[in-house]
Amino acid sequence: MSLVLYYAPMTSSIRAQWALEELEIPYEKRKVDLTTGENRRPDFLALNPNGKVPLLIVHGTPIFESMAILVYLGETYGVTKGLYPAPGLNRAEVLKWMAWNTATLGEAGARYLRHVSDRYPAEERNEKAAATARRDLHDLLGVLDRALDGKEYLVGGRFSFADLIVASFVPFLARFDIPLDGFSHVDAWASRCMARPALARAMQP
Amino acid sequence: MSLVLYYAPMTSSIRAQWALEELEIPYEKRKVDLTTGENRRPDFLALNPNGKVPLLIVHGTPIFESMAILVYLGETYGVTKGLYPAPGLNRAEVLKWMAWNTATLGEAGARYLRHVSDRYPAEERNEKAAATARRDLHDLLGVLDRALDGKEYLVGGRFSFADLIVASFVPFLARFDIPLDGFSHVDAWASRCMARPALARAMQP
Ligand SMILES: N[C@@H](CCC(=O)N[C@@H](CS)C(=O)NCC(=O)O)C(=O)O
Ligand SMILES: N[C@@H](CCC(=O)N[C@@H](CS)C(=O)NCC(=O)O)C(=O)O
Repeated sequence: MSLVLYYAPMTSSIRAQWALEELEIPYEKRKVDLTTGENRRPDFLALNPNGKVPLLIVHGTPIFESMAILVYLGETYGVTKGLYPAPGLNRAEVLKWMAWNTATLGEAGARYLRHVSDRYPAEERNEKAAATARRDLHDLLGVLDRALDGKEYLVGGRFSFADLIVASFVPFLARFDIPLDGFSHVDAWASRCMARPALARAMQP
Repeated sequence: MSLVLYYAPMTSSIRAQWALEELEIPYEKRKVDLTTGENRRPDFLALNPNGKVPLLIVHGTPIFESMAILVYLGETYGVTKGLYPAPGLNRAEVLKWMAWNTATLGEAGARYLRHVSDRYPAEERNEKAAATARRDLHDLLGVLDRALDGKEYLVGGRFSFADLIVASFVPFLARFDIPLDGFSHVDAWASRCMARPALARAMQP
């Protein structure tokens, strides 16, 4: 077994680190300095031509995209740990939320950031588009809130990689002035997820 | 076995239809009229609170998000058909391209559309942002082109759901003035994928 994770602190790499810590499997961590453009150097681009983290090297094969990394880790190591369902309908539901985070919530979040964050050129930002994205994010938090009504976790009554991937994104929206106040089920669920010791281990420098 | 697909013609439902036709498994098709807002009616929202197609009902359980639908169908029916690898590294690579299409290429495509298509409010469009998105799409097509250099298909020398999901998006960029001309490997690969009889069956009204 050989797993090497390329990561950068405070980025979407956290979901891969969190997953690896939940699984309690040994892996090597290699920090990529995004501020000096290490992720744009030829040696890194040879592994991930997109120049992004996280990147997991599995027995020499580079796997990019956090959702792919999580599904791979889930089906390979997560089933016996109860973190990823065996094949069947519960697994389909876990995949549904993982893909929803990756495609739908992720798109709305990225779109909102492009219009409010000064990481992006001011001339490409647009207040009306920011307001639309904000409304879309609220609608999606509403979808999540109703899904969590009466439930501790998204699928099958237990914490799974569906919770992990969504909870690695949603609580951080507060930093961009999208608090979870109106979404009490999401808020309580996010606290449950954020209290996991594996997340604390993943966040350690 | 009971599979019911809610779909709308000429949308991302095509990838689910295409997958089902490749698998040659029986399923019921239910058309959703997006023009009359059928996808916003309470009975549909009860199944998919996001109000989107495709939606696959698996033995009564609604699965939204095309990537989730494809991974579920792939692992359940695709392995024996050679369309989805057995668990392992080839599967991880298939997931990598599926997630790349869903997260990275999909985000850039959606962003480009928001700034060039008159489906979106003119006051939210921005020419400079459109140019950035266009450049990003070209970079991503470059990533895909280099991945396909010397290869017939993305993973393992055979057509898989990785090709299916990416090919259900990339060729349609031409409609929005992003032709595949400069990307000869993508272009040849897209023709191979588009020639599949299952796609023709999926496109039949
Ligand atoms: N869809 C990708 C997103 C990866 C991504 O955007 N990573 C960012 C950090 S959050 C990155 O590496 N940015 C560096 C750059 O773009 O230069 C995933 O989920 O893995
Ligand atoms: N991320 C979703 C996207 C689904 C989606 O955006 N579907 C569009 C058609 S391409 C839709 O149903 N739109 C109807 C609406 O938004 O009113 C997936 O891959 O399934």
